[in-house]
Amino acid sequence: MDSWVDGQPADSLSLKDRGLAYGDGLFETIAVHDGQPVLLDRHLVRLADGCLRLAIAADIQLVRQELLSYAAAMGEGVLKLILTRGDGLRGYAPDPTAPGRRILQGNPAAAYPAVNAEQGIRLFPCSTRLSHQPLLAGLKHLNRLEQVLARAEWQDSEHAEGLMLDQAGRVIEGVFSNLFLLRDGVLLTPDLKRCGVAGVMRAEILFQAESLAIPTQIADISLEQLQWADEVFVCNSVYGVWPVRAYAALSWPVGPLTRKLQTIARALLDA
Amino acid sequence: MDSWVDGQPADSLSLKDRGLAYGDGLFETIAVHDGQPVLLDRHLVRLADGCLRLAIAADIQLVRQELLSYAAAMGEGVLKLILTRGDGLRGYAPDPTAPGRRILQGNPAAAYPAVNAEQGIRLFPCSTRLSHQPLLAGLKHLNRLEQVLARAEWQDSEHAEGLMLDQAGRVIEGVFSNLFLLRDGVLLTPDLKRCGVAGVMRAEILFQAESLAIPTQIADISLEQLQWADEVFVCNSVYGVWPVRAYAALSWPVGPLTRKLQTIARALLDA
Repeated sequence: MDSWVDGQPADSLSLKDRGLAYGDGLFETIAVHDGQPVLLDRHLVRLADGCLRLAIAADIQLVRQELLSYAAAMGEGVLKLILTRGDGLRGYAPDPTAPGRRILQGNPAAAYPAVNAEQGIRLFPCSTRLSHQPLLAGLKHLNRLEQVLARAEWQDSEHAEGLMLDQAGRVIEGVFSNLFLLRDGVLLTPDLKRCGVAGVMRAEILFQAESLAIPTQIADISLEQLQWADEVFVCNSVYGVWPVRAYAALSWPVGPLTRKLQTIARALLDA
Repeated sequence: MDSWVDGQPADSLSLKDRGLAYGDGLFETIAVHDGQPVLLDRHLVRLADGCLRLAIAADIQLVRQELLSYAAAMGEGVLKLILTRGDGLRGYAPDPTAPGRRILQGNPAAAYPAVNAEQGIRLFPCSTRLSHQPLLAGLKHLNRLEQVLARAEWQDSEHAEGLMLDQAGRVIEGVFSNLFLLRDGVLLTPDLKRCGVAGVMRAEILFQAESLAIPTQIADISLEQLQWADEVFVCNSVYGVWPVRAYAALSWPVGPLTRKLQTIARALLDA
């Protein structure tokens, strides 16, 4: 399907766009099923938070309307929204009144091997570590060179994802996923106040776990804590949940809570 | 003057470009005088280092030829080169054979107030701190949200530049400049192994100082060391050297070594 720029079909972008110049913008990757963007409200909440923190004066209601129209035309697949600060002159100084530029791109659903969801995955131990930047932590912004470097570390198909630690060696996230672990009945996920992307599926899984009366905790997590987990899984808003079976010399069984949350995520994506 | 993309006049870019998607690329901002790109070899050395570290298979000789042709057509002004990894599919995984995409943009010379160079500047104390990422430190890559946030901190014209510290409180650089200080006859500039952009004019000034038999040192620099400096200046490859007169409650005279290096930088830019 044709891409849209500011609501109009387009296949190219101004060379003056600050998204290109500085990565000055945000993005969302949204599953589309039956003409509907899945978990749309959560995507828009994160986007609005990003606009607030980067001071991009975007009209979120207009973004919502465009996402709904675009998804209806797509039917099925994955919709990528890039919201940049729009054109700039020379220099870093942003225009605080700039409404941003909306770029919508549609793609077929990602073709991940079914075995990832069915039997679980092995995480590659990335040596690229996430830097600490509280001003940007949690946002899905366009400065993603750390993820590019991390994803370049492995080419084999044995590893469906990689695990990224922060500069202090804490467990943070996958390259394109968030991570959860279960230990003694408590569902834990890393605190993302210093780095990391606060995923939409992560937020949904925390909500679903609470609905199931499963205690949840957002905390700093060490590799040692990961080692002693009863279950480990990763998630994102496109594939849902993948059980994690192994990371370096560590291994875990695919557990019942992982399966339960995977079923819930699948149902949301297929609703 | 028209921009060029991969050697051809163009005013727009593919929406699939990874420079837009992830900030996956590098840039150089090059002064052009009398049809010549100033300090071209130093710009190309940094670009080549960036390509090596990001694994972009660019043809640096081709880039050189294009920069020379473009500068000859421009005559005077500022030439911006953006080198991205080119189009991507979905996902972070880079194609290690991609030769990159070359974007050249020409602008008139920046209209900085003459008083900056003549009387020196005041540095705004930025609260945005630079994160530590040794894998990217020194590179002029396209992930520049920290600079955007820092530059948004002040709008007044009293501050021509801002000073950025790192997460540990070390003095690192200006938002768009490198910083030097003179203390007891030694010219110091911050070590950029954790963060910061290793500027082309910084490299040239280190070289020029050594040619003048002035001892130089690249080191971690604290605010306290800055306080006790005899002279302070900032530099970049467009404006040359600006003396620094003040930062928060600190102030310095405009000293003779600053003036000497400023004259040398000016001569290079006007050669």
